[in-house]
Amino acid sequence: MNGKNMDDSVGMAVPRNLSLDDERAVQLESGQFFGPLNIRYETYGRLNSDKSNAVLIIHAFSGDAHAAGRHSPEEKTPGWWDSMIGSGKAFDTNLYFIICSNIFGGCAGTTGPGSIDPKTGNPYGLHFPVITIEDMVKVQKKLVDYLGIKCLLAIAGGSMGGMQVLEWSIAYPDMLRTAIVIASTSRLSAQGIAFDAVGRNAIMSDPHWNGGNYYGQKNMPAKGLAIARMIGHITYLSDKSMRIKFGRKLQAAADFNFDFSDQFQVESYLEYQGDKFVERFDANSYIYLSKAMDYYDFSTRFGDMDTALLRSRCSYLLISYSSDWLFPPYQSRDLVYAMIRQGKDVSYTELDSPYGHDAFLLETGRQEIIISSFLKSAREGKR
Amino acid sequence: MNGKNMDDSVGMAVPRNLSLDDERAVQLESGQFFGPLNIRYETYGRLNSDKSNAVLIIHAFSGDAHAAGRHSPEEKTPGWWDSMIGSGKAFDTNLYFIICSNIFGGCAGTTGPGSIDPKTGNPYGLHFPVITIEDMVKVQKKLVDYLGIKCLLAIAGGSMGGMQVLEWSIAYPDMLRTAIVIASTSRLSAQGIAFDAVGRNAIMSDPHWNGGNYYGQKNMPAKGLAIARMIGHITYLSDKSMRIKFGRKLQAAADFNFDFSDQFQVESYLEYQGDKFVERFDANSYIYLSKAMDYYDFSTRFGDMDTALLRSRCSYLLISYSSDWLFPPYQSRDLVYAMIRQGKDVSYTELDSPYGHDAFLLETGRQEIIISSFLKSAREGKR
Repeated sequence: MNGKNMDDSVGMAVPRNLSLDDERAVQLESGQFFGPLNIRYETYGRLNSDKSNAVLIIHAFSGDAHAAGRHSPEEKTPGWWDSMIGSGKAFDTNLYFIICSNIFGGCAGTTGPGSIDPKTGNPYGLHFPVITIEDMVKVQKKLVDYLGIKCLLAIAGGSMGGMQVLEWSIAYPDMLRTAIVIASTSRLSAQGIAFDAVGRNAIMSDPHWNGGNYYGQKNMPAKGLAIARMIGHITYLSDKSMRIKFGRKLQAAADFNFDFSDQFQVESYLEYQGDKFVERFDANSYIYLSKAMDYYDFSTRFGDMDTALLRSRCSYLLISYSSDWLFPPYQSRDLVYAMIRQGKDVSYTELDSPYGHDAFLLETGRQEIIISSFLKSAREGKR
Repeated sequence: MNGKNMDDSVGMAVPRNLSLDDERAVQLESGQFFGPLNIRYETYGRLNSDKSNAVLIIHAFSGDAHAAGRHSPEEKTPGWWDSMIGSGKAFDTNLYFIICSNIFGGCAGTTGPGSIDPKTGNPYGLHFPVITIEDMVKVQKKLVDYLGIKCLLAIAGGSMGGMQVLEWSIAYPDMLRTAIVIASTSRLSAQGIAFDAVGRNAIMSDPHWNGGNYYGQKNMPAKGLAIARMIGHITYLSDKSMRIKFGRKLQAAADFNFDFSDQFQVESYLEYQGDKFVERFDANSYIYLSKAMDYYDFSTRFGDMDTALLRSRCSYLLISYSSDWLFPPYQSRDLVYAMIRQGKDVSYTELDSPYGHDAFLLETGRQEIIISSFLKSAREGKR
């Protein structure tokens, strides 16, 4: 599966599907059973004979199963973490078998609110059950079971992906040897919840949202979803990175025209990002996934953070970024302290970076070295 | 005008109007003339015989002329800076004659996009000219001239009010002895512009906005304006103050119900603030005022910050708040450095506070002492 045209790329990536036809495919946290269920996933590298080299990568809020390589030579940009996955990269496809699946509730191949409800023949919309981070992990476990993997060498993810990594480590402690949690937290801050709430509000205030029933309609809740995405983008960047990238530069005019056509570059950038997002993301998925992210907090389930972490058996690697104010370093430190209190093997680095939360997608240099070293020690049985 | 029922209150506040009937009442930065013009204002305390004790207070983005006291005994809450204005307070009405006017482009008595265009008999809407911080100050000067005040003892304002204070100091250097600039900047950051852009986008995406022509219609762009306000509120608070105030507490249910009725307290708070704001603020004013705030940067007008400040003759007091990330302390420090380079008399304090940008409305204790001492030295001719 390694690329031939590019030395370190995984080359052509093939989207795969696991269909679970059972109406009771998964029991959700709410108690309700859900099915049938499709899981879209991709794999890179080769699973070794004793199935001991598998690494599950979990994407962030708006990501998908396409983590590396290209679906066709014409595809403009490779998978979202292509810089980290490939020959000689952090997740070295010469050494590891990499799995990445679209999350449950998403809109890129795995069943979500935009999927057809077989009972009605129409998209679920708001009839889709409210799901949790725990439910996403349950669905991922179905895929890992299907692939015949008893224990993953590592599970890695950033942001909302990191929340799922943490959940894996306490829900299925025997199924992973190491957990790599990047720019993440076990519970979103009040400020993070607030931004998500405004995003959901923007979508639900768009008249084209129509109570979630917009599939097949002439108009989509595009404006609401674009606004939600614009807010998201501000929180993914930092004050400093925005100052460096855009500053106060105007888009076109050298001087202020005294009309509303004037735009700062940062305005145009956000509007572009908002509009582009609408082409690939489903507004209802935005609502469901952000709600799941807001509600996740394993400490409430087990009484406190320490008791939850007591269940885990893996080694942890946590990485946070100095200018990340959406998943700020103090949240990682809180987790690390609790892990240390519980005698866990934990490595932690706070990397200095101006790129805010997005750093985990951009700062591949130092992150790559840290992760590849950590994986090496795991591979060599030192963790 | 001092209150009789409350020891330190200004008591009954009387809204006043200055009408400038001239069609060429003010020449805007764009070159265009604008008029007629109404200026809504209030005053507290007494102007002394030599008119040397006048203090102009300039409100922030969503404030108004009603800075202190009550319009009627039934009024629930007093003016927006009541804690700072009154007998024995920072702006001591036994000593100073306080003036506060609603800003040009606003929606609380001074002419703005919601006012009637005498040429058409209809509200201006988007026919209102694009105005700037400079224009707001020009209009305030009309009021100060009308009151017969040649030189103000002080001009004080927080946030967007502080921007206008800075503008006063370089536009009319002989008309003020001191400038008090709180939680402000001479130019908004890219991040600040970005939040404003999303707010405007939310308003303009609301179909009831209707290109700005919603006055007298059945529906107002209430949802868009509420979303803009929700975003604003997040930026006025801090991560820490939100954690202290709301944390991850749910509004009603003790446990997660697995439906979309569940709300965190922070969500309910923001929705309440958004809805409440719609009752008192005009969506077009939001667009015009935020645009003016985004565009303000006196350094572009004069080449650089130092050259601009060279024009000023007043003494400055700057106060910033440690957790203010919308008008962060480093922006105040940049101004202070430039003022020092230009040999200006400047006092600066960064107050430690968890309350974010809102601290200038909440942290009256220390702020009060600093301002009253500064004003005392000005009153005594030491500045």
